[in-house]
Order: sequence, then structure tokens, then C-alpha cells
Amino acid sequence: MLIDLNSDMGESFGAYSIGADDEILRWVTSANVACGWHGGDPHVMRRTVQKAKDLGVQVGAHPSYPDLLGFGRRVLQITRQEARDYVLYQIGALRAFAEAVGVRLQHVKPHGALYNAAVKDRELSLGIAEGVADAGGDLVLVGLPDSEIVKAGQAVGLRVAREAFGDRAYNEDGTLVSRKVAGSLISDPAVVAERVVGLVRGTVTALTGKVIPIQAETICLHGDTPGAGTIARRVRERLEAEGVRVAPMGEAIRPS
Amino acid sequence: MLIDLNSDMGESFGAYSIGADDEILRWVTSANVACGWHGGDPHVMRRTVQKAKDLGVQVGAHPSYPDLLGFGRRVLQITRQEARDYVLYQIGALRAFAEAVGVRLQHVKPHGALYNAAVKDRELSLGIAEGVADAGGDLVLVGLPDSEIVKAGQAVGLRVAREAFGDRAYNEDGTLVSRKVAGSLISDPAVVAERVVGLVRGTVTALTGKVIPIQAETICLHGDTPGAGTIARRVRERLEAEGVRVAPMGEAIRPS
Amino acid sequence: MLIDLNSDMGESFGAYSIGADDEILRWVTSANVACGWHGGDPHVMRRTVQKAKDLGVQVGAHPSYPDLLGFGRRVLQITRQEARDYVLYQIGALRAFAEAVGVRLQHVKPHGALYNAAVKDRELSLGIAEGVADAGGDLVLVGLPDSEIVKAGQAVGLRVAREAFGDRAYNEDGTLVSRKVAGSLISDPAVVAERVVGLVRGTVTALTGKVIPIQAETICLHGDTPGAGTIARRVRERLEAEGVRVAPMGEAIRPS
Amino acid sequence: MLIDLNSDMGESFGAYSIGADDEILRWVTSANVACGWHGGDPHVMRRTVQKAKDLGVQVGAHPSYPDLLGFGRRVLQITRQEARDYVLYQIGALRAFAEAVGVRLQHVKPHGALYNAAVKDRELSLGIAEGVADAGGDLVLVGLPDSEIVKAGQAVGLRVAREAFGDRAYNEDGTLVSRKVAGSLISDPAVVAERVVGLVRGTVTALTGKVIPIQAETICLHGDTPGAGTIARRVRERLEAEGVRVAPMGEAIRPS
Repeated sequence: MLIDLNSDMGESFGAYSIGADDEILRWVTSANVACGWHGGDPHVMRRTVQKAKDLGVQVGAHPSYPDLLGFGRRVLQITRQEARDYVLYQIGALRAFAEAVGVRLQHVKPHGALYNAAVKDRELSLGIAEGVADAGGDLVLVGLPDSEIVKAGQAVGLRVAREAFGDRAYNEDGTLVSRKVAGSLISDPAVVAERVVGLVRGTVTALTGKVIPIQAETICLHGDTPGAGTIARRVRERLEAEGVRVAPMGEAIRPS
Repeated sequence: MLIDLNSDMGESFGAYSIGADDEILRWVTSANVACGWHGGDPHVMRRTVQKAKDLGVQVGAHPSYPDLLGFGRRVLQITRQEARDYVLYQIGALRAFAEAVGVRLQHVKPHGALYNAAVKDRELSLGIAEGVADAGGDLVLVGLPDSEIVKAGQAVGLRVAREAFGDRAYNEDGTLVSRKVAGSLISDPAVVAERVVGLVRGTVTALTGKVIPIQAETICLHGDTPGAGTIARRVRERLEAEGVRVAPMGEAIRPS
Repeated sequence: MLIDLNSDMGESFGAYSIGADDEILRWVTSANVACGWHGGDPHVMRRTVQKAKDLGVQVGAHPSYPDLLGFGRRVLQITRQEARDYVLYQIGALRAFAEAVGVRLQHVKPHGALYNAAVKDRELSLGIAEGVADAGGDLVLVGLPDSEIVKAGQAVGLRVAREAFGDRAYNEDGTLVSRKVAGSLISDPAVVAERVVGLVRGTVTALTGKVIPIQAETICLHGDTPGAGTIARRVRERLEAEGVRVAPMGEAIRPS
Repeated sequence: MLIDLNSDMGESFGAYSIGADDEILRWVTSANVACGWHGGDPHVMRRTVQKAKDLGVQVGAHPSYPDLLGFGRRVLQITRQEARDYVLYQIGALRAFAEAVGVRLQHVKPHGALYNAAVKDRELSLGIAEGVADAGGDLVLVGLPDSEIVKAGQAVGLRVAREAFGDRAYNEDGTLVSRKVAGSLISDPAVVAERVVGLVRGTVTALTGKVIPIQAETICLHGDTPGAGTIARRVRERLEAEGVRVAPMGEAIRPS
């Protein structure tokens, strides 16, 4: 058994700090690095890819809608071509820093509202996937299982990693319970770790109590929740105690 | 004899159009493409590198201070590290588009106030040159002869192209006459073409009337002056009539 | 009979020029001035309100989503409170320039996608209306007849001006035909002028040929269409020839 | 004896929090509220002026260069007219929020690099002062004693408040010791309080040990230093124990 742990990183901007990068980075195997459009700036990007390299963590781009004011959490109605161009711009910018410190970009995970909108929006997903394909380099595209983005990635010939969440409640159909619903967020490190072990084995208990199947190659650990560092550590340790190999998604997913 | 003709391109932004790209592009051999910080946006960047490719024009990055409101024409007091990171970010973003359409990035020419400030600012110039060096790819750095940016480029091991202007008046010391001075801008196509021929041969007549030596591998043709297309055409035709080979700067400057 | 003619103005930004302000401004009675979020900048704002004052044209704010890259033409999913705060910010900024040159702000007309989204979005419309109400000054809120924005304006106690278009085709239900449909835009000055006269009298011929009723206190003249100046002039002259008094919307709409 | 205590407030932006507003606000009499150009956003502006009102703290605008990425801490070479327009824009935006919650804007204090550059730059200072004058409302302009900004404010007929610092070391000529110099920042609350008492009485001990005269109507308390809340409280309590009346600058400075 093999699983990747990913987390969003490098979302600080100028004088502003956000996230718990230093506490999380050591427990994950893939870092999704902000590219300056919802957070992150050139200096933060350089520092983040350097820290990831130092810890042996693989680096990916975390492109967003152009919305610093809203931290990329609001849907903007863009065209397929705009999505394609915006994603390519951000991948290129981040890749320059990755290569400057001597690492190869491994993956792309859309951020926030762009990630969520892409779940059901086929045109948007195709734009994103085309932007990733334009960038070359055999990048892995990360998205929800059965989402349009996963289909779009496959349609344009990308490697795709399906993502699951240990700290989010699931509906019976495998979608995530809205954050507005009580019980949608799970903050007990032991419970999260337990759920991650289940996800690695292919199942999760939905909010209704029913056990459902989930196929994922990577698990997201949030860095913006209280106790994020503790949760990340517990998940990693529990996985290793269970004999699961935690390794970057690029290793698990065969070259396209 | 061999000379490169370069011009700034792709400075339109969103709904806003600027410049005479289509009129100029066919007469030059190197295009300096805006990267979104003073002008340009992801869609304009893609379109511009595609057009350059179609016409066989080499593509370079035209990075700027982060100042869309001022079109990059105002000095911002940034540190050496900021200059390095800002330049690398912009090169990376543009390079992704260049590679997506199948061309290699040839050069980097700082834009506007960043170009001008770098002439005499050693720390700023080192930051810019380090950003270009970080990007790899044997990029040529463009700057004024005898400027700090040229020295910085050489200090970090870059290929460097010295730039001259056919439509700007020169002081006796080889610096440009301020745009605020009457006679600093030359708009007669025949006169500009004549001066370019002189520059290729290594001399220019200063505003005082004295003939001074200028060494340059590339000549800048402005796209934002009235009659820019006519001037560009006249310069190109005159050079070819004189038997000068007009070719991208990357050919003239030996690999580092 | 009394009608207001309004047009969008002051959408240039920094080095970028857009629109035909000088050609249009003399024919209208109300200017919707961009506030820097989709176009416009502080210098353009000052210059535009000064020009409006010089020609006796009333000034209003033209607030937008924060989207310079998209010229405010793309829907951004913001909350009611965000809409309220964004609108208030932009009104305040513009009002400072209006008062500095000695004019009172007359009205507020949301721009582009914000205008369109507000037609059917009750929460968004309430946010906009609350922002206008926060600003005080008995401002008139401009929107489509029967739209949510008009209802929201009335609900919060604002004066409201209903807007009609002489250069756009109408559906039978009084909504505008999408710009994507052939025949949706009318560019013949004589036809536009004829339709405006009809609108003043309360009817317009829908795309289907059916004559439908439209109640409006202000007619929009676009500044970004070819021949915009000619159309504006023709409309104004035709209205006056018909004995219609063209006057700012603030005069036609009784104080709340 | 009468003194005002001011502090910078409302510099959070979107998802990013900065400063110790809630700890400081209760001890000061004037709040300098960011206007969105270096920090602050429309929602933060509304919330900040509301909190100031609730605590009876007077509100002023804290305009900046357009530089969110640099938090307004870097000099941008703008013209006098640009300074004027930028300042007016930001005052207008903030004033709309102040008036919406029912308070009058009291003052304007330029932020960061704009404040510092204005100390010696006469043209820049005149632009700022003209922008404040354009805004009307008898606003007080805050600046360093003997600076160009104070002179400019007086030249255009503004009320002016001279500012001193309890937590910064002084040179013998009354200028501030650079932050880069050891000992330039004072963090011991008792020492800061002692120095503030001295400043109210018209003197401060320079870094050299010499006692020099300083005339100031307002004292700045920084919110971004460790222990800022404790320092603010200690200063306020010490002043009151000394019988100094702490009151908004608008009360101390007679109407112009």
C-alpha cells in the first residue's frame, strides 16, 4: 500500500503570514505551492520550494482565480481559454523557482473555488487540464474522484491523482459534506488518522454511517485548521505504523 | 555585419489595447514580451509568442516592477532579492507560454523604469542578473552599453547584448538625452534609419554634433511612437540595402 | 416628456485609453464614472468628473467587481456584505473627486457583470442597494425595469431610475436579447434614435416584431461601439426635435 | 497639557490578519485606518471604523502608495499630481465608511514609505497636502515636526499635527534614528512611557544622551511590535497619572 499526503503551502503574501507551513511540511510528501494569484508572492514561492526541497517533499503548483482579495475562495466565471491561460501562467512562474532551487515540478492542484468549480464544470476543467498539458513535464493533475477535472485530465492525456480528505465528512455518493453543515469538519487527530487509514484501504464512513468506497492516490491535510501540525503528525505516524508507505504521488502514478 | 532589431510587444491588458504590435513585429528579429506586471496578461502573452513564432521572431521576457497603474514607468525602491525574485517569476510565466507554442526563450530585457534604474544601480542590476541566471537556459540579458546591468550580467556569467537606439538623441558620454529635452526623440524615418546604419558601424552623432562610438548588438525600435510601423520598415529595409544581416541577438552573441 | 441619457465614462487606466468619452460626453446628461475596480484610476476619475462638470453633465459612480483583468465583465460570487462594502468603497472614492471639483454625486449604476448579475440576484441586489444607502446623499440607483436591483433599491428607500437601451434588441418579456444572438446589437444611428424616441413614449419593438411596453427614466448610450459619438448625437438631436426634454435623471425622479 | 495618541489600524486584508488592533484601540484617541492600497479592504475598513466609533476613538485615513505586495513600505517615484489623486481617492473611500457608521473623518496620516519620503520631498508633500485639501472637511494632516509635509500642509491651509514617537530613538537634530541602527527601537514599556511623558513636556533624550526639544501634538504607538498592547496601556496610564489629558488631535488643534 502506497499513499501520498499533500498540503497547501506558501500562501503568505508580502507582510502577511498565513498557514502553518513549517509544522505541516515535514509530515507530507507533496506540497501545493501558491503562485501569487490568491496568495504567495515571488519571495514566498522561492522560500517554500527551497524548504520543500530541503525536506525531500515534492512540489506542485496551486493555481487560482485572480482574486487575492478573496483568497481564491470565490467563483469567477471565466472561459475555458482563460482557465487554460491562467493555469499555464501560474505553473510557469512557480516552475522557474522550483528549477532554480533544483527540483522538478511534480503536480498541479487547483486552489479553492477553482478546485471546487471544476468538480462539475466540464469546460472549466478542460481549460485547466489543457493549461497543465501545455506546461509539459508530465505533471500530475489532482482532483476529486469522479470529478470533471479528473475526466478532463484523462481526456487530454495527463496523469491524474484522485484526492481524498481525512478531515472532511462525506455524503453517501462520495461527495464532500458542505462546510456549512455541522459535523462536516473533523478535528480530532485520532479520528482523522483513523479515517485516513480507511481511505488508504478504499473506504470511508459517510456522515449517515454508511461505509462507502473511495479510490484516492493522495490525501489532503489542511494547514489552516487549529492543530493542523498535530493532525498531520498523527496521520503520518499512524500510516507508517499500519505499514502504509507514504510517498509522493508521482511515484504511485505511472508515467502517462 | 550583423545586428538584431528588438521591440516591446504584448503590452495590451484585458480589454485594453496598446502598441502597434502587428505593424512592428514583421520588421524585428527579437520581441520583448510583457509578462503581466506592467502590461500583458496570460492571453496576450500566449497570442504574442504565437505571433512571434509565426513570423520567425525570437522571443524574450520583458519583466517590470509590479506597477500596472504606472505601466512600469516609475521607480520602486526594491531590494536586490526582490529584483531577483520578481524577474524570475516573470521569466517563468512567459517561458511557459513560449514553450507551449514551441519556441525557446532567447533573452530578457527589463522594462521601463526597471531598465533605467538598473543603468546606474549596481545592487538592483545584480538582482536582475541573478534572476535571469536562476532561470537558466542561456538567456541573453539586454542593457545599455557600459551600464551596471551589463556588468552585472557578465559578473554572473550571462550572455549580454548591448542595446542602442535609433530614435533617441545621445549625449557625448554615450548616455541617452532625457526625453524631457527638446530633440531627444527622433521621428523622421529616414533619419532614424540613417542613425541605425551608423550604430551598426559603431558610431552615432551626439546632440552636440560630435560623433561618438557606440557598441551594440541590438537596436531598439519603439512601438508606441507615431509612425512606428513605418520607421521599423524603413530601418529594416535600409539595413538590408546596406548589406547588414539582421538576425536575432542570440545568433550574434556566442554561447557563454 | 423628460428623459435622461447616460453613458459609461472614465474607463481608461494608466497608460491605457478606452472609450470615446470626449465624443459622447457632450450629448448625454448623466455620466457613469468608473471607480478604479474594472477601469478608471484616480487621475482619470478627476479628469472625467471635471469634464462632466464643464459640460454640465451630472456624475454618478459606476462600481464594479474587483476585476481589472476582466474589465468587470465576469461574475464573481460575492456575498451581500461584500457587495455592500465594495459599492460603498467605490462610491466614496469617486465622490471625493466629484466634490473636489465642485459637483454632487447624482447616481450609482453598477457596471458590467455586477449590473447583469443583479438583475436576478436578490441578495446581491440588496447588498448593492445597501451600499448605496450607506453612502447617503439621496443617490439614484440605476437598474433594469422589474429587476431585483430596482426592487432592492426601493426596499431600502432609494430613488431608482429604470434604464432602457436604444441599441439593444429586446425579448418579448422586456429582457435584453443576449449579445451572442445575431441582431442583438443595433448600430444604425437612425434606427437607434427611432427606438429611443419609442422608449421615451413607453414602447419598443421586440426582436420578434411585437411592440412591448417599457418604462424607463434613463437611456443608456454605449461608448464602446463603433460610431458611438455619431449615435449619441443623433439620439440627442432626434429627441430634441421631437420635443422631448433631455435632462439628468435626478431631475426626473422625485426626492425620496 | 493635552496630547493625542495615534496608532495604525485596519491593515488586515482578505484572509490575512495583521496587527494587534483590538489590544491597542482602547488606549489611543486617534486611529489611522488603512484604505486598501497597502493593507485594509472594504470589509476591514467598515469594521475598523465601527470599532473605533464604539470606543470613542477618532478616525483618520492612512493612505499609501499603491503597493500591497510591499505593504506600502517601498518608495515609488510618483508625481505631485499622482500623490494628490492617490491620497484623495483613499480619503474618499475611507470617509464613506466613516460616515456610514456615523463618524466624521478627523485626520490623514500618510503610511510607511509615503510618510517617510514626504519628510524631505517638497513636491511629494505638496501633492499629499493638496489631496487632503481637496477632500475638504477641515482634516488634520499628520507629519514629522519640521518636515516638508508639515510645511506643505500649512502652505495649503490645513490644520497640521506634529508627531513624535515614544518607541523610537532620536538623533540630536530631532530626526529619527534609522531602524537599522542598534538601539533605534525601544520596547521596554516603562521606558517608552517615560519618554512619552517627556515628549508631552517638549523634550526627548537623543541617542547621544543629549536632551533635545520636540514639539508634537500626537504620539504614535506602533501596533506591530511585540507587546504593543502592553506598551499602549502603560503609556496611557502613565500619562493620566501625570495629569496629562489624552484627547483626539482634532481637539488640540484649533480649526483653520
